[in-house]
Amino acid sequence: MRQPALPQPLIQLLQRWPALKWARHYSRATLSHDVLAACIVTVMLIPQSLAFALLAGLPPQMGLYASVAPLLVYGLLGSSSVLAVGPVALISMMTATAISPLAPAGSALYISAALTLALLRGVVLCGMGWLRLGFLANFLSRPVMTGFINASAVLIAVQQWPALAGLSSPHASWHAWLAIHPATLALGVLCCALLWAIRRFAAPLGRAAGLSAHNTLLLVRTSPAVLLALVTVAAAVWQWEQLGIGLLGAVPAGLPPLTLPSLDPALWQTLALPALLISLVGFAESVSVGQTLGAKRRERIDPNQELWALGGSNVAAAFTGGMPVTGGFARSVINNDAGASTPAAGIFTAVGVLAATLWLTPALAYLPRAALAATIIVAVLNLVDLNALRSTWRFSRGEAVAQWGTMLATWTLGVQWGLLLGVLGSIGLHLLRTCRPHIAEVGLVPGTEHFRNVLRHRVQTVPELLSLRVDESLYFANANALEDRINQEVAQRPALRHVLLQCSAINSLDSSTVHSLHSIALRLRDAGIGLHLTEVKGPVMDQLQRSDLLKHLPGQVFLTHYDGVRSVQALL
Amino acid sequence: MRQPALPQPLIQLLQRWPALKWARHYSRATLSHDVLAACIVTVMLIPQSLAFALLAGLPPQMGLYASVAPLLVYGLLGSSSVLAVGPVALISMMTATAISPLAPAGSALYISAALTLALLRGVVLCGMGWLRLGFLANFLSRPVMTGFINASAVLIAVQQWPALAGLSSPHASWHAWLAIHPATLALGVLCCALLWAIRRFAAPLGRAAGLSAHNTLLLVRTSPAVLLALVTVAAAVWQWEQLGIGLLGAVPAGLPPLTLPSLDPALWQTLALPALLISLVGFAESVSVGQTLGAKRRERIDPNQELWALGGSNVAAAFTGGMPVTGGFARSVINNDAGASTPAAGIFTAVGVLAATLWLTPALAYLPRAALAATIIVAVLNLVDLNALRSTWRFSRGEAVAQWGTMLATWTLGVQWGLLLGVLGSIGLHLLRTCRPHIAEVGLVPGTEHFRNVLRHRVQTVPELLSLRVDESLYFANANALEDRINQEVAQRPALRHVLLQCSAINSLDSSTVHSLHSIALRLRDAGIGLHLTEVKGPVMDQLQRSDLLKHLPGQVFLTHYDGVRSVQALL
Repeated sequence: MRQPALPQPLIQLLQRWPALKWARHYSRATLSHDVLAACIVTVMLIPQSLAFALLAGLPPQMGLYASVAPLLVYGLLGSSSVLAVGPVALISMMTATAISPLAPAGSALYISAALTLALLRGVVLCGMGWLRLGFLANFLSRPVMTGFINASAVLIAVQQWPALAGLSSPHASWHAWLAIHPATLALGVLCCALLWAIRRFAAPLGRAAGLSAHNTLLLVRTSPAVLLALVTVAAAVWQWEQLGIGLLGAVPAGLPPLTLPSLDPALWQTLALPALLISLVGFAESVSVGQTLGAKRRERIDPNQELWALGGSNVAAAFTGGMPVTGGFARSVINNDAGASTPAAGIFTAVGVLAATLWLTPALAYLPRAALAATIIVAVLNLVDLNALRSTWRFSRGEAVAQWGTMLATWTLGVQWGLLLGVLGSIGLHLLRTCRPHIAEVGLVPGTEHFRNVLRHRVQTVPELLSLRVDESLYFANANALEDRINQEVAQRPALRHVLLQCSAINSLDSSTVHSLHSIALRLRDAGIGLHLTEVKGPVMDQLQRSDLLKHLPGQVFLTHYDGVRSVQALL
Repeated sequence: MRQPALPQPLIQLLQRWPALKWARHYSRATLSHDVLAACIVTVMLIPQSLAFALLAGLPPQMGLYASVAPLLVYGLLGSSSVLAVGPVALISMMTATAISPLAPAGSALYISAALTLALLRGVVLCGMGWLRLGFLANFLSRPVMTGFINASAVLIAVQQWPALAGLSSPHASWHAWLAIHPATLALGVLCCALLWAIRRFAAPLGRAAGLSAHNTLLLVRTSPAVLLALVTVAAAVWQWEQLGIGLLGAVPAGLPPLTLPSLDPALWQTLALPALLISLVGFAESVSVGQTLGAKRRERIDPNQELWALGGSNVAAAFTGGMPVTGGFARSVINNDAGASTPAAGIFTAVGVLAATLWLTPALAYLPRAALAATIIVAVLNLVDLNALRSTWRFSRGEAVAQWGTMLATWTLGVQWGLLLGVLGSIGLHLLRTCRPHIAEVGLVPGTEHFRNVLRHRVQTVPELLSLRVDESLYFANANALEDRINQEVAQRPALRHVLLQCSAINSLDSSTVHSLHSIALRLRDAGIGLHLTEVKGPVMDQLQRSDLLKHLPGQVFLTHYDGVRSVQALL
């Protein structure tokens, strides 16, 4: 949307506060779309908020609180119209991993650490936004990210066993894991089965019953909440608590409280690395959801603006008793499908959740914990993408190793180490690949001015000339490879008079490389062999001119390789 | 040297034991060259061994022991004819840094830790040789390596102050650093001045006196040893010890002892990282010296063989009471200049040092410590290369930052952290550069089949076509950049019908990139725009065929960009 009439400072302000832009065009139609989407997302968000708070080892109301103020802040700052911010499974589990070594789950210190983690995430995200470091999320390569999500999803599902089976002391020995409560387990398994059946069969059934696509969608997306509502009513009416089935228990009613995260430097230091990793993961997830949905709507998502918006949301969570938040995949898709047109939908969702904290909490007390565990299990197993494992394996064994390494490390060493090793491993693999560059001898494709690899194409060559094409930017880690290759070729070709380096694939140099090119040039000059450079790109030529290589080059620089070969052949 | 008549297993054996190769051609002339070179290097090596052992906080004889067995092993295993192995300043200081936190300098535990460090280095180097990891030394980029050497040289020179000034308690407060012993300081400064004068003026004087280049060289290289010998004689005759000038004191005579390094796992764990860093630095220094000198002699240095040879030398040092060793720059140059023809020169040097440990030690006792300190100071200040700082600054600000960062970190945090941060910093800089790739719009250079950047050359373009050249291999960290650029161009060009990606500079892809290309293709197809790939390299084409991108591509793959543009224009 162009605003050519506006003065420059105002445009900058609009870029920082996207709400100022959409609010000016807000209409009644937009309002009705946004309210409908907000209602559907609210119905889905309430049980998820409770479940993810429990997953993070926090009191359930912290999930609800995290779905009020953070959504308001994102609605004002965010650049995506449909991203649904709030507690998500992956971040909730990473939160639990980060703070559970510090205090017993649910204790005052634990809650304070969770608030501090939210604040730190906010600080990290805003800091990254300020430094325009949004591109850092790209370092989570696809294989590592999918491997990490797969492994985490399985980990989360397994961790639901105590709640699903009604174990009394979940953190005791392995024995305790088998001390199931049959009625609770039966309820949990039934809920899992029904939730899975809704996902699997509700859409075809709706279509078969002649519902429109829109109504089918409403049916599919609201059915889980309806199921949970029915279970809650049943638990209240038939007093399931007396059967020993664990219920959620009293959730305090009222507005989100004002809270103060800890400013203890020791705690900040302990949580710094987890906060950074959780921020990166949450940001990468949010941006990829936002961009995927944004592309369909021809809407541009600005990663640096998203950093500010998500950072602000987490700061808001920290000061209003909420847990760390980010943009969730499933809820955003639903928000989009249900017709959300502007970030106002998120603001209306916040209002919906706020109403729930005020008036719905007495009913929520009867929600069986096993049913919430079932919600989590079905939600996270939906994240498992076995296809990604298969296609990565087919595409590249090295990347598949990084992917499986990430999964195994996540399972054995925990989410933080899994992710960290995955990122470092994929960077290491990339460096390993570039430090052994592909160097091809090229020859002229007959009838053209084009040169290709002598091993792959039928081309013309001359024994006095050697044309080499380096298929990699040169930098310190591969500077010696070219030197080695040229030494080897020179030793094998007694007739050689000129070496031509086709530099079309060299995109940059560094000073280690220039030093290496320098010694190649000197050695060839001593051996009476010319060294010529062709198709040197502009940026690389600028770099060469800042060094003194060109002064010592025993040859010339040609615009095209064809020119170079013709000119050098004329010299023979 | 080709040995076509030999059977394959024997050739492999020869590659592993280069000594078997040169020994078969050993002649009387070679012998006389090697013996002369060995004599000169021995004269230089004896005082340096003592000085570097003191620098490492070890008893002086450990320097001598490190110059016997390790040289024999290198002579048998090494692939360089002229590399002079033994104690060197940089590695000695890194040794002191690594083991001084573990025990007081000179104590039995300290000595045992030094032996263990030598063994660990041997294990690390042999392990790297076995895994063929010689290329890892390339990750020490030139700016980082020169910065590190500069900073370490200054650090070493400053650390010589207590010995040079005859301080009684060097490790006490800053006060103690000023409690100089005037006679010692005068001697030390005089030695520094004379050693510097020899380096600076001996060669011109020799030439002026009509000496041949060879004899001038002998004069320059043996003068420091002659100076030290004169100082030692003066100290013995005039009983300088009674003036309070510190002498080296009794050096035990006799063969290098058999010693057993500690096998304590806790010690191994503590020393693992230092051993790895010292190994990398020592190996990088050795290989670069070996290759520089080897190039002049048309001798091929095999990095992986060097790893075995240096590893073996350090293992030998560990079991014969020696300190960690590597190939030294200055001594290798002298070995080369003095005419060493085979690794036997190193073996003869070992014999020379062995003779010194047997018969010269009574005389060595009178060597003033201040004179040894002067030897170290002049040796290391010679390593300082201010020119490298200047040329790096001129070439690239980013690399200069890495270089200065390495120097500052070495000074403030110590050699290990300095080096580690330098390596990680230069890798980080490289990744930062590649994650924002240069993407150029290209057009046809009139009268050729060649396409160049529209911003730098006068070229022809057509509004319906967009030709983009990506100047970087695509990988996860830059996968989004191309997507962003194409989205932006498509939004700005209403007439656009086809996008042609010139892939000549794309050397590899990964699965993140393929995923990104996939979404570009789908989005362009939805917008009714064709996407064509041209000049896709063989290895990249292989990768694409392992994905399903080509099935979904709304266009074709062309051999040359010229073909692609002509064919697509025919469609318009």
